[in-house]
Amino acid sequence: MPTPVAAEDLLRRRKRGFSLEAPFYTAPEIFDLDLDIIFGRHWIYVGVDPDLPEPGDCMTVELGAASILLIRGEDMQVRAFHNVCRHRGARLIDEHKTSVGNIVCRYHQWTYGEDGRLLFAEHMGADFDPKCFGLKRVNLRNLAGLIFVCLAENPPVDIEAMAAAMEPYLLPHELSNCKIAHTSELIEEGNWKLTMENNRECYHCSANHPELTIPLFAYGFGFAPGELDDEGRAQAEGYARLRTDCHARWEACGLPSAEIERLNTAVTGFRTERLPLSGDGESHTMDTRVASKKLLGSFTDRKLGGLSFWTQPNSWHHFMSDHIVTFSALPLGPERTLLRTKWLVHKDAVEGVDYDLDNLTKVWLLTNDQDGALVAMAQAGTRQPGYEPGPYSPYTEELVEKFCDWYIGRLSTHLLPAASRVAAE
Amino acid sequence: MPTPVAAEDLLRRRKRGFSLEAPFYTAPEIFDLDLDIIFGRHWIYVGVDPDLPEPGDCMTVELGAASILLIRGEDMQVRAFHNVCRHRGARLIDEHKTSVGNIVCRYHQWTYGEDGRLLFAEHMGADFDPKCFGLKRVNLRNLAGLIFVCLAENPPVDIEAMAAAMEPYLLPHELSNCKIAHTSELIEEGNWKLTMENNRECYHCSANHPELTIPLFAYGFGFAPGELDDEGRAQAEGYARLRTDCHARWEACGLPSAEIERLNTAVTGFRTERLPLSGDGESHTMDTRVASKKLLGSFTDRKLGGLSFWTQPNSWHHFMSDHIVTFSALPLGPERTLLRTKWLVHKDAVEGVDYDLDNLTKVWLLTNDQDGALVAMAQAGTRQPGYEPGPYSPYTEELVEKFCDWYIGRLSTHLLPAASRVAAE
Amino acid sequence: MPTPVAAEDLLRRRKRGFSLEAPFYTAPEIFDLDLDIIFGRHWIYVGVDPDLPEPGDCMTVELGAASILLIRGEDMQVRAFHNVCRHRGARLIDEHKTSVGNIVCRYHQWTYGEDGRLLFAEHMGADFDPKCFGLKRVNLRNLAGLIFVCLAENPPVDIEAMAAAMEPYLLPHELSNCKIAHTSELIEEGNWKLTMENNRECYHCSANHPELTIPLFAYGFGFAPGELDDEGRAQAEGYARLRTDCHARWEACGLPSAEIERLNTAVTGFRTERLPLSGDGESHTMDTRVASKKLLGSFTDRKLGGLSFWTQPNSWHHFMSDHIVTFSALPLGPERTLLRTKWLVHKDAVEGVDYDLDNLTKVWLLTNDQDGALVAMAQAGTRQPGYEPGPYSPYTEELVEKFCDWYIGRLSTHLLPAASRVAAE
Repeated sequence: MPTPVAAEDLLRRRKRGFSLEAPFYTAPEIFDLDLDIIFGRHWIYVGVDPDLPEPGDCMTVELGAASILLIRGEDMQVRAFHNVCRHRGARLIDEHKTSVGNIVCRYHQWTYGEDGRLLFAEHMGADFDPKCFGLKRVNLRNLAGLIFVCLAENPPVDIEAMAAAMEPYLLPHELSNCKIAHTSELIEEGNWKLTMENNRECYHCSANHPELTIPLFAYGFGFAPGELDDEGRAQAEGYARLRTDCHARWEACGLPSAEIERLNTAVTGFRTERLPLSGDGESHTMDTRVASKKLLGSFTDRKLGGLSFWTQPNSWHHFMSDHIVTFSALPLGPERTLLRTKWLVHKDAVEGVDYDLDNLTKVWLLTNDQDGALVAMAQAGTRQPGYEPGPYSPYTEELVEKFCDWYIGRLSTHLLPAASRVAAE
Repeated sequence: MPTPVAAEDLLRRRKRGFSLEAPFYTAPEIFDLDLDIIFGRHWIYVGVDPDLPEPGDCMTVELGAASILLIRGEDMQVRAFHNVCRHRGARLIDEHKTSVGNIVCRYHQWTYGEDGRLLFAEHMGADFDPKCFGLKRVNLRNLAGLIFVCLAENPPVDIEAMAAAMEPYLLPHELSNCKIAHTSELIEEGNWKLTMENNRECYHCSANHPELTIPLFAYGFGFAPGELDDEGRAQAEGYARLRTDCHARWEACGLPSAEIERLNTAVTGFRTERLPLSGDGESHTMDTRVASKKLLGSFTDRKLGGLSFWTQPNSWHHFMSDHIVTFSALPLGPERTLLRTKWLVHKDAVEGVDYDLDNLTKVWLLTNDQDGALVAMAQAGTRQPGYEPGPYSPYTEELVEKFCDWYIGRLSTHLLPAASRVAAE
Repeated sequence: MPTPVAAEDLLRRRKRGFSLEAPFYTAPEIFDLDLDIIFGRHWIYVGVDPDLPEPGDCMTVELGAASILLIRGEDMQVRAFHNVCRHRGARLIDEHKTSVGNIVCRYHQWTYGEDGRLLFAEHMGADFDPKCFGLKRVNLRNLAGLIFVCLAENPPVDIEAMAAAMEPYLLPHELSNCKIAHTSELIEEGNWKLTMENNRECYHCSANHPELTIPLFAYGFGFAPGELDDEGRAQAEGYARLRTDCHARWEACGLPSAEIERLNTAVTGFRTERLPLSGDGESHTMDTRVASKKLLGSFTDRKLGGLSFWTQPNSWHHFMSDHIVTFSALPLGPERTLLRTKWLVHKDAVEGVDYDLDNLTKVWLLTNDQDGALVAMAQAGTRQPGYEPGPYSPYTEELVEKFCDWYIGRLSTHLLPAASRVAAE
């Protein structure tokens, strides 16, 4: 008989260096906790400035049972609200994206402004005070064009520390001056944490990602030094030198490149680094050349490597000289996750002239499909009674471990008495 | 983490004048209570006499997990049984409607008569007493051709009070002398109570039901008097006069028309009134003319308005001079409801001669589809953490409130100690 | 409100002679117990030697959430493992059947031998001991070519008693020298126990299985003697004589034929008997003649009747002179069961020459479909509140009762304190 899952016990007995126990990947009770604590009380990446280019543009994002309505106002600010009418609770906007004047509930025509104020409600009588029935706000932080929301009333304050650290890296790419060339939505048949763990290592890349590994270096994501032969050692050393040289060159141009890593040491955990690319070294494409002739921002140099930005709990982003690819993982169920990927190019780039859409998207469309199959395979195993936590490689799966550290730490902070917590802050 | 739903707490803290808390619309625990208490211990409308015109005609109706088998006997009585064999529990009749001699279980040929007696069971030996293994009865009340069933052993006795009040209204339409011209089944993606709340107000009609509102008066279903301009006030007064005049005329012809309203003051709650129709004022059709030339009963006057009959918890009915439309809402799950609608005309009316089926059904087929979309939209909102109970209009949503009063009252009677109950009887 | 299911109470109040209470067929809690206790701690029939003819051949079998990987080694032994990588828990083999060299996890290329040893794992460093990360074994017993597995660490030892009793019956048919001519997978919409109960009686055969009953005798599976007329009595007596005569003839040829029945008196419960067939009496076919000209083993006599072998909890098998049909019932959910059926002929028999596939499979393909419909009908009844346990026929449903005895006994042994147990061992 399945024992009821006691999250506290699972947190206390978590064994570092090993994958998590099965209920973290399969149990509805843990999934509910994940929605409540992880996705309900942390900053969640949901989209980009160019999702809402004009005043009146709306986008809805589903975080668990919560539907969040983002709308750009006449003042060009993006605001976020609960997507629920204050009358009888109808969902206000059904579409993922649309454009409106005011926000009008189709049920009984209650009408709200772009700032959430209730502007009109018929037949409510003289005692009714519309000021008490405005839309409920959701916290929103626009970080250099990346939009984060937080459902909690008191969101983690250290998003400002992340913003202060990251803006110098991100702003030169001028994301807000881009357009979305393509969006893909892939449903992965696995727990969101398996999607994230898969993202946090490249141990699986050589055997599974023939396209992604074209612009990557063989030893760019860790290796067991004792297992290298002479040739391998030479390659690894060459890569280390290249990285140092590139960092120096880019920093000299005003592009911060060095690693910042607060994956398991901040509530709003993240990591960044600008890394050289292999081959011609321009971009994440099949031929490693830029996908868009129109470079981003005021760039003139195509060889700016790939600036990666990973956030806890649910996003990663790659910024090149010519385009940006941005990923959000959104939990749909204990064993289902939506991976939403967006490819951005300069807003003046013209499809067919400046860029070819297939060339722009090919590497990551294929890579996402491959990862989706791997995540499904991992989920199909963790569901089995024969599963038990296995060891992470200390050389190639350190960031997976840090993801788990962060996750266990965040749940512990909210669920365990202070004395027995796993420190994560 | 979703707190377990304590129905008693939810009942105690219910706030009058506001929509119900979310778990009433979404929680499986409350849905189970609804099936047990509301659909298991009250009179539920399930069909009409003309569903079973001949002896041996059977109909099955699903109330939650219960399948009820209705069969008309040689004596022309309709009886109801649990649709389960007493041997090894096989479902007896699979089809929604069929016709049989005896009721024979296909598994091992146990055979029951139309009165439920076990007539035949092979290989059971000498000690077996067939009298102990007849089909289990379900209570049934045929009210002027409308068939109500109750799964409880001791059904509410005040169905007799409802019958006494309603028979004078209903009998002149001679439902039992009708035939079913059309049946539609619509699955609404919402809790059954949202289906019912939607039915109990017309605040949403003007913006959502262009066809239904053709034969309706703008101020026929409530309004905030303070919001009317001079023209509106004149219209509202005109309608009030018309209603008084019509009532007087119809009552003079032996057709009771005045409102009876026991929606939240009886266990078997209901409401009725005969209301004038707009335009030509004959019937609920696109041109407001009768849909069937063959009038019902012994009617000669086409302008008898619309006699409406609403029952708690799950039905409404509109009786015109020429046809009847009857609706039952049957819960399929916390967020799914079957709306079964039947259009009846005089049994001698000939399709294509006396009535056109499309003309007969158009208004309500379209209206049902529109309501189904509204119910789904309301459900999609109540499911969200951003939902909170909102205020009902005191002018246009009084009957919604009375539906909630009745519902909360019935659950309270069965679940709360007497001292803390919300009075509903 | 559905009362939580207390398995212990249900076990204690079980009434012999009657079908089980509804939760045994419908409740997820009981289904979980069934997976844990019945399918997790008993010997489960999952396939045959000819499923894996060559070294490297793999087959996966799903028992509840467990996926079991069977593989034949170079030493021709079949071994069973949990189908889960010891690294991060990915499912190793996706396909139901495939052939491999070593077992390689596609995620990070961890590689296991046919004996489960971890042969290769990259980047794990010097402290990693591969000997601690071999695949987890599952117990396996090959009984004359029928493969049984047991997930428990200490499986019931009396499988050896069953093997000792059954090998003399089974070995002459030389199952391991057969090939699978056809496999069918049928999903029955019912609890696995209803699939088994259906298998354990032929009370339902005359009205539901026109094809299966061709080679069967009318009184071969029990009858109420008091209900027979003179002709029936003569038939029953004739059949009893034929059975005695056949047993004597077959035993004289070295083919044990007498009934052995330990259905509810052994942990590894079973029953066997070789029974005469009607008509030409050769095989289970539409014309009762052999389906394959190439007889099994060293048989020369086509008229060897049908040797049946029934095991608790999930299999039955029919061995004829020319072919074998073997059935396993595997639970998919409280109300869904997979019935996997395999038809085997001599491995040198040639389709189209020695046997016609349609002729070989027709009787049981049709019978399985008919049984699937009956199981669904029974499930649809037990799900209803109107269901209550009904009486088994003491003449035709004795083996159903013994199945229930065994089942209740096994659960009781594991769940009830010794003093209050229903004895089953």
